[in-house]
Amino acid sequence: MKNKRKIGVLIGSLRKESYSRKVAESLRALAPENMELEFIAIDALEMFNQDFDDEGTVPESWVRFRDLVKQMDAFLFVTPEYNRSIPAVMKNALDVGSRPYGYNAWDGKPGAVVGVSPGTIGAFGANHILRQSLVFLNVPAMQQPEAYVANAATLHDEHGELILESTREFFRSFLNSFSTWIDTILNNCRAPRLFICQRMVPGCAP
Amino acid sequence: MKNKRKIGVLIGSLRKESYSRKVAESLRALAPENMELEFIAIDALEMFNQDFDDEGTVPESWVRFRDLVKQMDAFLFVTPEYNRSIPAVMKNALDVGSRPYGYNAWDGKPGAVVGVSPGTIGAFGANHILRQSLVFLNVPAMQQPEAYVANAATLHDEHGELILESTREFFRSFLNSFSTWIDTILNNCRAPRLFICQRMVPGCAP
Amino acid sequence: MKNKRKIGVLIGSLRKESYSRKVAESLRALAPENMELEFIAIDALEMFNQDFDDEGTVPESWVRFRDLVKQMDAFLFVTPEYNRSIPAVMKNALDVGSRPYGYNAWDGKPGAVVGVSPGTIGAFGANHILRQSLVFLNVPAMQQPEAYVANAATLHDEHGELILESTREFFRSFLNSFSTWIDTILNNCRAPRLFICQRMVPGCAP
Amino acid sequence: MKNKRKIGVLIGSLRKESYSRKVAESLRALAPENMELEFIAIDALEMFNQDFDDEGTVPESWVRFRDLVKQMDAFLFVTPEYNRSIPAVMKNALDVGSRPYGYNAWDGKPGAVVGVSPGTIGAFGANHILRQSLVFLNVPAMQQPEAYVANAATLHDEHGELILESTREFFRSFLNSFSTWIDTILNNCRAPRLFICQRMVPGCAP
Repeated sequence: MKNKRKIGVLIGSLRKESYSRKVAESLRALAPENMELEFIAIDALEMFNQDFDDEGTVPESWVRFRDLVKQMDAFLFVTPEYNRSIPAVMKNALDVGSRPYGYNAWDGKPGAVVGVSPGTIGAFGANHILRQSLVFLNVPAMQQPEAYVANAATLHDEHGELILESTREFFRSFLNSFSTWIDTILNNCRAPRLFICQRMVPGCAP
Repeated sequence: MKNKRKIGVLIGSLRKESYSRKVAESLRALAPENMELEFIAIDALEMFNQDFDDEGTVPESWVRFRDLVKQMDAFLFVTPEYNRSIPAVMKNALDVGSRPYGYNAWDGKPGAVVGVSPGTIGAFGANHILRQSLVFLNVPAMQQPEAYVANAATLHDEHGELILESTREFFRSFLNSFSTWIDTILNNCRAPRLFICQRMVPGCAP
Repeated sequence: MKNKRKIGVLIGSLRKESYSRKVAESLRALAPENMELEFIAIDALEMFNQDFDDEGTVPESWVRFRDLVKQMDAFLFVTPEYNRSIPAVMKNALDVGSRPYGYNAWDGKPGAVVGVSPGTIGAFGANHILRQSLVFLNVPAMQQPEAYVANAATLHDEHGELILESTREFFRSFLNSFSTWIDTILNNCRAPRLFICQRMVPGCAP
Repeated sequence: MKNKRKIGVLIGSLRKESYSRKVAESLRALAPENMELEFIAIDALEMFNQDFDDEGTVPESWVRFRDLVKQMDAFLFVTPEYNRSIPAVMKNALDVGSRPYGYNAWDGKPGAVVGVSPGTIGAFGANHILRQSLVFLNVPAMQQPEAYVANAATLHDEHGELILESTREFFRSFLNSFSTWIDTILNNCRAPRLFICQRMVPGCAP
């Protein structure tokens, strides 16, 4: 399918039994045909230090990560909340991908945020703090629907399957809205990124 | 010009000599031909009270404001910062336009935010707090360029003209980016708002 | 009781059946003997406009409000969330009390924030956005316990009484922690605000 | 001096020539006699992963860090802003110190935040996002004065000395206010942490 989108999925928890990972896996399984959700590992990224870029000692993990980010059409950030805020591992991925100065790998690609928590608040704080960075990173963020996935310990059965059809329906509608959002951002004939237009919009004449 | 966009401009200060108003007037004067910046008065809006909608005692000022908002294609929010946050008059406008429940007048229309301060920080806090509401209001917000207009008391001469060409250039580039953003959000063949697609995109076949 | 504290309670909703008001009333009923919770009306405050202070046309409502705020020892902010943010009526009260420049009526007095929502998130966004202003207003904010009062439509019976003992217990523990916080901020012999020390701490010798 | 406070200083940048580090060094040099500023290294902390605590595979770096944090009386957070938000290395330190669940090493100890940027905004975003975590960590945060240290590349001469007396004066007044804040939080006879009261307040009779 010509228009199949590559969606980079970043998961903000390193825990093996991470609820965010399970939610991300459910989203991947429910993705429509035109979206390919690819998990991008962020656990092995050295902590951001500008000296690595300035001194040409860029860790191999950063090089691979930045290349991978550049290959994606869009990004899905699935994250827990730590101490009312974004987990360090997720923030580090945002920072590593944003540098060196002038080479922001996220630039102009659409994004969506899913907060996940075992409690009732659904990582509201992490969600909006992550969005504040997306402003600077120039990642157009889908506004609606918002996803505050609460009570995350109760969503899946012992086989990792979602228990409730209503959860599946919400995840499907979230992904369909995200698909429309991605098309909105990437498909526009008037937008400056014409190579995208030419590749993506049949019969588009800039 | 068929494609001329109506941009509703909301100003977050009631002061007669408001710096935000002066910046908004400069932006209006510098707007490209395809953008018509219309100032929407928000000073006379009764403070939001859900009872007015529930009891059918909606103030006339709310009715007029909501109608005006519905006529706009996009929104430009120009705001000072009060106490590290959004001014009440701006927040009240957002709230009045968002109700009654199910009739969000902002829904789906693109927006941009300009922070203005006499100091050096450029209303960073007001800018990002306003953006947090745009998520819920489903106003796709332009991410870049950001506008933190600092030292606002020094920008204009006694005739209200911008003193520096560099300020004019930044305002023009901000407006051009906003024009592209508006097209990106409103012009898309795949987007659900097809009437816009049919009007705007030559040869577009939904 | 010499040390009885006057706690100004501000409610961020104007709705007659406001859940925030009902929660505030329950908190007032449960307050320990050394706390007197006084509701401060904010619904009649003219929208903040710096010209009123600069031109000596200060509304009577502002004068009364500022005087009342100055008489309080501490503040309890009970607020819903509108559009992921602080209600305009609450923000307006904060702004009116903070001016004219140099006469911040909130200055140095301890505060606590209670978020209230009919949904599950408990006004997290309004709570933290309100806290951002408390930084600038120099209102030392109690950090723990946080109060995100969710499912607010289900807390009270038809007589306005709290249904669950667990809710009463949480409100009592919240108020007891706030009482300790107020003493911590106001009672300190080393603190610069010695008049408070002399009035409040028997045998305190600065 | 009996009352000498141990202030743990955390620096949010790993760059060798970090402006935040230079500001922290200036603050340490200007600290009043009753404050001992101790830099706490956070660069070698493994990225937070709850499994390490749950499975008893806690990294040695975490054990040392948590012990060090527990020995401090208060904390000074000096941080740049990355992508409008808190640097990952600083957030990771907050998270590591906050766990395992029930063993929050920051609990109840006063804190202050200094934002540092080479630009004009002074890391406003990082400052307030860091403060949002201090709410959950129960670190009473000094509200005023705020510190948004801008133009950080121009503050020091080639020997690392502050160039302007006005900068020194601001740093001194910030530290003196912080000293008062620490006394306010730790010295209170009514506060539950009586061991502190007995140690710190001569003639205090709980």
